[in-house]
Amino acid sequence: MHNHAIARVGVLGATGYTGRELLRLLADHPRVRIAFATSEREAGACLSSLVAAAPELPLVRADDAPLGDCDVVVSCLPHGESMVWMERARAVGVRAIDLAADLRVPDAETPAWAAEVVYGLTELHRAQVAEAELVANPGCYPTAAILALAPLLRRGLARGPVVINAASGVTGAGRAPRADLLFAEVAESFAAYAAGNVHRHLAELRAQTEALGNGSTPELVFTPHLLPIRRGILETIYVPLAEPLDAPLSPWLDDYASEPYVRVLKDRLPSVADAVGTNQVVIGAVAVRDVSQPMLIVVAAIDNLLKGAAGQAVQNLNLMLGWAETEGLP
Amino acid sequence: MHNHAIARVGVLGATGYTGRELLRLLADHPRVRIAFATSEREAGACLSSLVAAAPELPLVRADDAPLGDCDVVVSCLPHGESMVWMERARAVGVRAIDLAADLRVPDAETPAWAAEVVYGLTELHRAQVAEAELVANPGCYPTAAILALAPLLRRGLARGPVVINAASGVTGAGRAPRADLLFAEVAESFAAYAAGNVHRHLAELRAQTEALGNGSTPELVFTPHLLPIRRGILETIYVPLAEPLDAPLSPWLDDYASEPYVRVLKDRLPSVADAVGTNQVVIGAVAVRDVSQPMLIVVAAIDNLLKGAAGQAVQNLNLMLGWAETEGLP
Amino acid sequence: MHNHAIARVGVLGATGYTGRELLRLLADHPRVRIAFATSEREAGACLSSLVAAAPELPLVRADDAPLGDCDVVVSCLPHGESMVWMERARAVGVRAIDLAADLRVPDAETPAWAAEVVYGLTELHRAQVAEAELVANPGCYPTAAILALAPLLRRGLARGPVVINAASGVTGAGRAPRADLLFAEVAESFAAYAAGNVHRHLAELRAQTEALGNGSTPELVFTPHLLPIRRGILETIYVPLAEPLDAPLSPWLDDYASEPYVRVLKDRLPSVADAVGTNQVVIGAVAVRDVSQPMLIVVAAIDNLLKGAAGQAVQNLNLMLGWAETEGLP
Amino acid sequence: MHNHAIARVGVLGATGYTGRELLRLLADHPRVRIAFATSEREAGACLSSLVAAAPELPLVRADDAPLGDCDVVVSCLPHGESMVWMERARAVGVRAIDLAADLRVPDAETPAWAAEVVYGLTELHRAQVAEAELVANPGCYPTAAILALAPLLRRGLARGPVVINAASGVTGAGRAPRADLLFAEVAESFAAYAAGNVHRHLAELRAQTEALGNGSTPELVFTPHLLPIRRGILETIYVPLAEPLDAPLSPWLDDYASEPYVRVLKDRLPSVADAVGTNQVVIGAVAVRDVSQPMLIVVAAIDNLLKGAAGQAVQNLNLMLGWAETEGLP
Repeated sequence: MHNHAIARVGVLGATGYTGRELLRLLADHPRVRIAFATSEREAGACLSSLVAAAPELPLVRADDAPLGDCDVVVSCLPHGESMVWMERARAVGVRAIDLAADLRVPDAETPAWAAEVVYGLTELHRAQVAEAELVANPGCYPTAAILALAPLLRRGLARGPVVINAASGVTGAGRAPRADLLFAEVAESFAAYAAGNVHRHLAELRAQTEALGNGSTPELVFTPHLLPIRRGILETIYVPLAEPLDAPLSPWLDDYASEPYVRVLKDRLPSVADAVGTNQVVIGAVAVRDVSQPMLIVVAAIDNLLKGAAGQAVQNLNLMLGWAETEGLP
Repeated sequence: MHNHAIARVGVLGATGYTGRELLRLLADHPRVRIAFATSEREAGACLSSLVAAAPELPLVRADDAPLGDCDVVVSCLPHGESMVWMERARAVGVRAIDLAADLRVPDAETPAWAAEVVYGLTELHRAQVAEAELVANPGCYPTAAILALAPLLRRGLARGPVVINAASGVTGAGRAPRADLLFAEVAESFAAYAAGNVHRHLAELRAQTEALGNGSTPELVFTPHLLPIRRGILETIYVPLAEPLDAPLSPWLDDYASEPYVRVLKDRLPSVADAVGTNQVVIGAVAVRDVSQPMLIVVAAIDNLLKGAAGQAVQNLNLMLGWAETEGLP
Repeated sequence: MHNHAIARVGVLGATGYTGRELLRLLADHPRVRIAFATSEREAGACLSSLVAAAPELPLVRADDAPLGDCDVVVSCLPHGESMVWMERARAVGVRAIDLAADLRVPDAETPAWAAEVVYGLTELHRAQVAEAELVANPGCYPTAAILALAPLLRRGLARGPVVINAASGVTGAGRAPRADLLFAEVAESFAAYAAGNVHRHLAELRAQTEALGNGSTPELVFTPHLLPIRRGILETIYVPLAEPLDAPLSPWLDDYASEPYVRVLKDRLPSVADAVGTNQVVIGAVAVRDVSQPMLIVVAAIDNLLKGAAGQAVQNLNLMLGWAETEGLP
Repeated sequence: MHNHAIARVGVLGATGYTGRELLRLLADHPRVRIAFATSEREAGACLSSLVAAAPELPLVRADDAPLGDCDVVVSCLPHGESMVWMERARAVGVRAIDLAADLRVPDAETPAWAAEVVYGLTELHRAQVAEAELVANPGCYPTAAILALAPLLRRGLARGPVVINAASGVTGAGRAPRADLLFAEVAESFAAYAAGNVHRHLAELRAQTEALGNGSTPELVFTPHLLPIRRGILETIYVPLAEPLDAPLSPWLDDYASEPYVRVLKDRLPSVADAVGTNQVVIGAVAVRDVSQPMLIVVAAIDNLLKGAAGQAVQNLNLMLGWAETEGLP
């Protein structure tokens, strides 16, 4: 249906870590022209000062962005700030991908114009993404967790509570200056935050695991940690099983055999380094010895700026435009 | 009974990270004289080349160490290599502290000369340590986990499986050159290892939690990870509870009120940075929301080279010599 | 003349990296009582939340600090903000140590009340510091550079231009949130800043090298760099020599033989790790091969928060109070 | 002359940091087929275990490598070990690129078969590289230094001594396990090594600067340092000038206007982060104030594994095969 030779793409919020990563991908994408990129603070500066390969375009304020002049607009604006621009884009009939959290879990308060939003976890909702006018790009932690758990959930194998012990590099926290993200605070340390099931991503995790679980969804316990690295996420997930698995990896090998961006490791568990710089979710699993109820440890690694944000946005963009899903991705 | 004004202490295996940390503490200890320090590879070099504050003594080979000339010998030799020297020390009547793992869980194969070994987790076995001829200094991961869990285990509050998600800096892996510990491999990465309940420390963890649990000990799931930091351990421990706790911190506040090296945080969870450079176990806890069986997340941080090794050895040394437990410690 | 058994010390600006390091030192100093510590933003919080070993005192605003109630006040306030408080302290007759840059190079604009200021590079101005009412504590870069160069300057051996290629950890830039000091910006990078002889520390460097050089002071070229480490400075200094030196290290070995905080390495050059956590300036030197004019490379390492700031402040404090210079220092 | 649609390339020594980077580039290169890759220790393992995108080929021992089956062989073997294989490749008539140092400065001991060797600093020797049978790929430090200095040397503007203060990430030291390259030794430190003009790269630096200088070559002082980062080099170069430059950047802007892999910054100095992940040499310069002889500080940054090794090797490979120089490069 949609099949553009070349598409014009606008970027809202281009100066954060996610925005710059997206610019980098779009600048090298063979079928994309960057229509505009916005920044309130750095308006006037040249895109190529952010990303050397980007075109010699000036950044503009969002208010000055020619929303109607592009085929798709992608927003990397912060949670809470993105929604108004998504509404404006839709009002002028432009398709949109939102990397903020606001539209990922539609509820009673979701406005009518956004009712048709598609949750853009590409591997799960490929067909809907292709037709979508509005895509909510998943959060970084949920992307890794949901893809790691889906094969067990679909088979009704997971029992609760599933403990998701997650750790992320600092770019996941954004580029706004914060004292707790200074080099001298983060280096040589490590800590949990938002522990006790109070993290914003839980609603998103629960909505998707419930959809996959067909009524037998396990409870989740989610604890993020801050790692002294720039990018990358590792999630160590403890899953009580309904029954022991003879071949612990077979659900993932079966489900993801033809996925270009899921890599299942057969003989070891993934590290953050396996995923950084790629658009892959890298997954491994190992059975736990000496426990009375069978348990599997599933480990998933992603690059939070690629598969966890800008990379998956490009996957979705490709689908929306009728292109190969891998176009322009590393 | 034992009460020395000054004691002579020998150090076996002084050139690893733990050995050097111990030398640093002993060099500044007001009541200790370093009798000798050994190294097979660096024999002949001066102690002060390892630790600037150490005396101008040459390192000697273990075979040349005057074991009988000291009041206590402390071994920082690797697992497997330490035992023969502990036997020799005991044979000449010298008291000994062993930082290797071999004697921590006495079993049918433990030789007769080591039968009297005391497990040196100071806060749990203070009286026995004071009288001990032979102390097995605890492992770094177990030190944090056991002190974090003891208040729940003693009260019969913990149910299983208890998930201990642990992460350590690289000095925990020793100073022998290994390709996987090179800066370029460790930096900007993070990974689990020995996942699935296969780590050596499990026997030690189980032996101590069983002793504390009085027959109702929960099963454990222990997963260590390697952090891109030099020192420090953080353990995020998920404990299903027999019943909800009204005041989640009270078991720790009660049990550790007078402990010089346990710090309970009342309003936040600890980070690695809270513990590094100190001999403290820093502990915090938070209840988990939205789960049907009550669960507590207990987080414990230590410096693996201090409370997790050399610092606790000095705590034990002080007790063995009739001194204040805090003597010579930061 | 001054000889207090115990002294009361006030700290202005206690929440930055230097302020906290000073609190840490003073909290462990056997002859110091902390009279007060100030913070505009964190007033009301407890000192022990900053530094676990500090007393249970609330931080106060500088306006509320009882300046007159202490024997010495030490200011860790930023450059430009410190001066007014130094004036107030002197007005009530309290002796003061200023860690800001404003008073380090007295000139025509220095106010009368500050005319008597002593430059507190302890090893060079020990006697004057002991009697001083007002001490300007040296900058971190100048401390290392001046102590590294002094033995050559005194002997008239240095020719210009002397190239001081310096690199510092991020705590040297302070704790205020700045986007360029975020972990994700600093890690895995390295860059020069203030290159081309435009750094503020040059006036201080020139004033002191001129005083040492007796009219034959060489020109300086000073280039600082930002290192992806938390603390520590390394300066690699290229000194053209008036004549070759037979024993390149002898000027330092001779001049610093009895200095407690200068360590001269005989067989290798220092690394940052040699100095971090200590109050030492660690110095090494090597002659350059295959150049027509003789040249020496002198390398100096310090901990910017200790010898480069709070540690040297305590050295000076000790002298001012008639105590051993090493009291309370690591 | 040479113009292949597709070429078969063999890689000697594929498991070090340079070898893996080269595999990564070749695996994505649209006109290259990897003919073989060698490793003595990991023979039998699959290329894709080293580099996910590489083909499913087993690593072979160098003795088993079908040297004659490829169009070009590239050696990433260590200095000293590479030469014998270069000789064998040439003996069977295969063109070769050597990343080891041995052939970079031909002298009386260079064997006859290697007499025709071309120094592969692409920007300086493009035409010769295109025709070469044997290319000595430059060292990482010399690549940055020579390209930074060339515009001044060609114009006879540089006077001596030129101080090259260089700093490199740890992958420059290779992947063999060495205690001094462990994470715990490198992190939070910084140090000079091979100071005093004793580094192997000096001969290479001198040979090239002499060739550029037309008889008025300045003396060099070269001091490398080890940075706590994985990859990247920054060189801060102090150049006394024959005369002041009105437009300090014009020599670089003029000489490199059409170079695809030299980026001249107009308004700031480069950081390591500007170059990492690219094949660029990023160059900036600033005049030094307040010195009697004019001096320029030239700063150059490269990725030591790309422009400093594997990236430049691909640049040369492309030229040798008659392709666009940028083919297959990021």
